[in-house]
Amino acid sequence: MTAPKGTAIVGQSGGPTCVINQSLVGVIEQARETMNITKLLGARHGVRGIVDENFLELDNQSLDVLEKVAQTPSSGLGSTRDKPDEAYCQRIFETFRKHDVRYFFYIGGNDSADTANIVNRMSNDAGYDLRVYHIPKTIDNDLLVTDHCPGYGSAAKFVASALMGDDQDNRSLPGIKIDIVMGRHAGFLTAAGVLARRRDDDGPHLIYVPEAVFDEDKFVADVDKIYSKLGRCLIAVSEGIHDKDGTAITHKMTETIEKDSHGNVQLSGTGALGDYLSGVVKEKLGAKRVRADTFGYLQRSFPGFASPVDQQEARLVGRMAVKYAMEEDTADGTVAMKRLGTGNDYAIETFRSDLVNVARNTKSLPGAYINDEGNNIKDSYRDYVEPLVGPMPVSGLLTGL
Amino acid sequence: MTAPKGTAIVGQSGGPTCVINQSLVGVIEQARETMNITKLLGARHGVRGIVDENFLELDNQSLDVLEKVAQTPSSGLGSTRDKPDEAYCQRIFETFRKHDVRYFFYIGGNDSADTANIVNRMSNDAGYDLRVYHIPKTIDNDLLVTDHCPGYGSAAKFVASALMGDDQDNRSLPGIKIDIVMGRHAGFLTAAGVLARRRDDDGPHLIYVPEAVFDEDKFVADVDKIYSKLGRCLIAVSEGIHDKDGTAITHKMTETIEKDSHGNVQLSGTGALGDYLSGVVKEKLGAKRVRADTFGYLQRSFPGFASPVDQQEARLVGRMAVKYAMEEDTADGTVAMKRLGTGNDYAIETFRSDLVNVARNTKSLPGAYINDEGNNIKDSYRDYVEPLVGPMPVSGLLTGL
Repeated sequence: MTAPKGTAIVGQSGGPTCVINQSLVGVIEQARETMNITKLLGARHGVRGIVDENFLELDNQSLDVLEKVAQTPSSGLGSTRDKPDEAYCQRIFETFRKHDVRYFFYIGGNDSADTANIVNRMSNDAGYDLRVYHIPKTIDNDLLVTDHCPGYGSAAKFVASALMGDDQDNRSLPGIKIDIVMGRHAGFLTAAGVLARRRDDDGPHLIYVPEAVFDEDKFVADVDKIYSKLGRCLIAVSEGIHDKDGTAITHKMTETIEKDSHGNVQLSGTGALGDYLSGVVKEKLGAKRVRADTFGYLQRSFPGFASPVDQQEARLVGRMAVKYAMEEDTADGTVAMKRLGTGNDYAIETFRSDLVNVARNTKSLPGAYINDEGNNIKDSYRDYVEPLVGPMPVSGLLTGL
Repeated sequence: MTAPKGTAIVGQSGGPTCVINQSLVGVIEQARETMNITKLLGARHGVRGIVDENFLELDNQSLDVLEKVAQTPSSGLGSTRDKPDEAYCQRIFETFRKHDVRYFFYIGGNDSADTANIVNRMSNDAGYDLRVYHIPKTIDNDLLVTDHCPGYGSAAKFVASALMGDDQDNRSLPGIKIDIVMGRHAGFLTAAGVLARRRDDDGPHLIYVPEAVFDEDKFVADVDKIYSKLGRCLIAVSEGIHDKDGTAITHKMTETIEKDSHGNVQLSGTGALGDYLSGVVKEKLGAKRVRADTFGYLQRSFPGFASPVDQQEARLVGRMAVKYAMEEDTADGTVAMKRLGTGNDYAIETFRSDLVNVARNTKSLPGAYINDEGNNIKDSYRDYVEPLVGPMPVSGLLTGL
């Protein structure tokens, strides 16, 4: 079927990243080159802006503004945590009909793909020619199908760099240092800590991810072992670590649990987990200098430090969504990336996949990257993550130390 | 008196910075060009390494290694929190005599200047020709005499950039966000948040520094006012805020207070203050989305993001300490900086001052930069801090928002 002529709407959803605006600008650029898109509107705060008919005109944005926005972290159109049910999606679809919207591009994680999928089904059922594309975005790197997710490389660069700097700090003033990294279910971001290590005694010396069971006593014993050997210990911990029953450690320590509209417990925006683990180590090891930092929102919104590869890829998937939407056999779907080469030969190509393939489930860090003890990430993970992060900051050590 | 020939010792002390290794490399470079310095040793972990005679050979470090170390945050020789008393200083002096040490360069804050001053006095009293120089270093920017301190510009760049990114994040997903910034007594670092603001509604919307009295009820009212108007609020808070009686807010909330060897309470390496203020706002305003991040050690050790001006100046003060130490009329002291021009005409020159002038007291953020309500920093502070930070990351906003 020939691609329809009409208005396109683009929106952004979920937690911001450093490159989600690259994808937005990719959509805008490609839409300008596409005859069938007669008007491009930005939905303010994702689906919320659609049902509220709160749109921003995107056709007249200057190239200068767009290039600046592309380099700016966080969602330029505003984001939302709304997770639409059927009735909500029906309102979205009705707004589309009302404004003769024929294209919907939604940049987000798997919840956004799910929304896109429901709206797509509704338009199909109604015989309304709407073309829907999900554009992947998440620092968690947990979407299915795609090799990796735009947003991850930049967040991984921040986390690995922060751990590298903190390891130098910890060498300078030795002690036990715990750094809490984002990642509710997937340990990809924390695993990027392997890039902080250059020398044998570089930290992070221990890395805990949600894919391995976290046992408090084992944790204390792990720390004790490193601390006894090196006189210091740097530890990277995913916020989503849980015990053998699957209970998140944050659950066990908090009495008042705050949940968002997805039913998720608040893990970020609080230093509680780090302080708790720090207290456990102090009490059980009697160690004096124990500190904890929670990297927080900086992981997803620190400016001027994005991965160049991540920026390019995020722009590309935005453009490709618009391109695919014009083709007969790829009228709806999600844009995914396939890795073509490794190391210096790293390259990707995009491909289309069905919305349903990314809408429901998420991906975990493969067990092959986790060591047998479940307290570290193998150096083989470096091959996967290094090309996505690009050059790391310089780190030098005086000869003789 | 002619400068003596002999061994020089250089050490680093206190909290690391992103450019303290620039000063170290400045000392090494200049010492290599100085005939009177026959050998240069690095004290491992500051004064601790002197009394333990734990030295690192610095004459044979390659230029490649030195350049990498200069760009690496944190103290390359290791640091210490030891604050020597008279007996400790006596041991330092005896080690110097034993190794025929004739030059002592100590990079640190006012406590380090105090140590340098005591050792200098001891050598004078003993008629031993020792030349002692303090080289300024602190992210707190609180040393007397000098216009500003090496280490501050880079930390200020990190803090201002982090706040700028977090403000974009907060625009995207509106709510109340509290960011805790280092600064026990001085608000310079938190005040750098003014650089995050470009537009009228940019955050941080409120800035609290230790130089103003912090009243919890007033704080809640301040937040309420901004939140009612903008639907969001970004707040920067110094870790050292205190009430009208001078009691630190962290004191009031913690039952078990951890103190370091200087008798200071632990403020960093914990998310407690942010979580406490977040709780207060939630409870009193009934606001739903309230989050807190504590920027933590990243402020002093995040790599690859230093201020270029700060790097150059830190290198320069290291070199100048060695130069001054060779002159008859500047045989001991501290290296200070004088600002020669503003804006694009910004430049500095170094000068020497007596050790005692920086050893005892510290500087506070001048009251002229704090607004009358004590809940914000005036834009005039931008003129002071901007040249020290250099270019900020790009920040763009779509037209029409």
